[in-house]
Amino acid sequence: MPSAIDFYFDFSSPYAYIANEWVDALAARHGRTVRRHAMLLGVTFQAAELKSPVSYPLKREYTLRDFARSARHERVPYVQPEPFPIASHNAARVFWWLHDTQGSEAAAAWARAAFRAYFTRGVALNDPAALKALAAESGVDAEAAEAAWGAVVWKDRLRQANEQALAAGVFGAPWLVVDGEPFWGNDRKEQIERWLRQGPF
Amino acid sequence: MPSAIDFYFDFSSPYAYIANEWVDALAARHGRTVRRHAMLLGVTFQAAELKSPVSYPLKREYTLRDFARSARHERVPYVQPEPFPIASHNAARVFWWLHDTQGSEAAAAWARAAFRAYFTRGVALNDPAALKALAAESGVDAEAAEAAWGAVVWKDRLRQANEQALAAGVFGAPWLVVDGEPFWGNDRKEQIERWLRQGPF
Repeated sequence: MPSAIDFYFDFSSPYAYIANEWVDALAARHGRTVRRHAMLLGVTFQAAELKSPVSYPLKREYTLRDFARSARHERVPYVQPEPFPIASHNAARVFWWLHDTQGSEAAAAWARAAFRAYFTRGVALNDPAALKALAAESGVDAEAAEAAWGAVVWKDRLRQANEQALAAGVFGAPWLVVDGEPFWGNDRKEQIERWLRQGPF
Repeated sequence: MPSAIDFYFDFSSPYAYIANEWVDALAARHGRTVRRHAMLLGVTFQAAELKSPVSYPLKREYTLRDFARSARHERVPYVQPEPFPIASHNAARVFWWLHDTQGSEAAAAWARAAFRAYFTRGVALNDPAALKALAAESGVDAEAAEAAWGAVVWKDRLRQANEQALAAGVFGAPWLVVDGEPFWGNDRKEQIERWLRQGPF
């Protein structure tokens, strides 16, 4: 059986949101599945001495334009949220809690719901009340979700995921790995599809 | 008549080299021409507070891999040169000298020759002797080229090009502008082609 595609993401990354919308169909076209890894870009940025593209004044304007245009190019709805970027650790902990207690499908459904909420309706995932309401409307037990993001065990789980991402060489999002080959960025979709179709090129 | 595609590049940028190989055919498919602008990324990096991706230790390895893979994806020959990156101001001054004295076709031919020399044969464009030899073998008057890259008038011409690039919002290479819409990167080829085909999307 061909190996799963690893998909590393941060809930605050527009390019990861866009890729999250196409990655399952892409994988399915080539008989693959997707293994999602929620992580924090803040951790990988720090390790790699990088910063968000929107933190550079001259780069910011172009990058915001490119977020929206890249979404339109993939026919994915996009409304630039404010504030942006935001701290996404609570949403990521909910992801791992669902992943480990209900399975990868439940976690993937949460990833989709949280990404869409932030990038189409501006639901502030960093706001506990908004996150709790989002959980409830997404069919997730909101009280249990709130308990999970505050619990040491899920804080540790996310920390572990960040460390695993760093060990895998991840320094940006989305980050995809196909049969050991790393691809960084929503804009590597075409190369990824080619790699899946024909193997190394 | 539809407007030309502006193409900003630095002779030391692998992604600009790759794009330089496809931009003319792309433009021609849509009845456009290409207006090339040699400039120095060092100047735009400084203005935008950015650095080369290979200057970040963790990013370097992936980026080198991506240069070569992106070249293969576009079926463009590529051999990672050493040293890399290099100072490209002399090659850029020769570009502007040819542009202003012999026309844009002669300058484009030089751009192609210099890019290919550096990125397929490792010809060090920052080495005056190597650059002079390259001029000679490319059908450019080598003595005149050497005189040009040392002359105040062509130093000023490049400085002016850098300032114009900054004023246009350029902070990376390749940088393409189609009917006022900016596109940064070899990896925006698909979006550029779509923009040319159907206009704004």
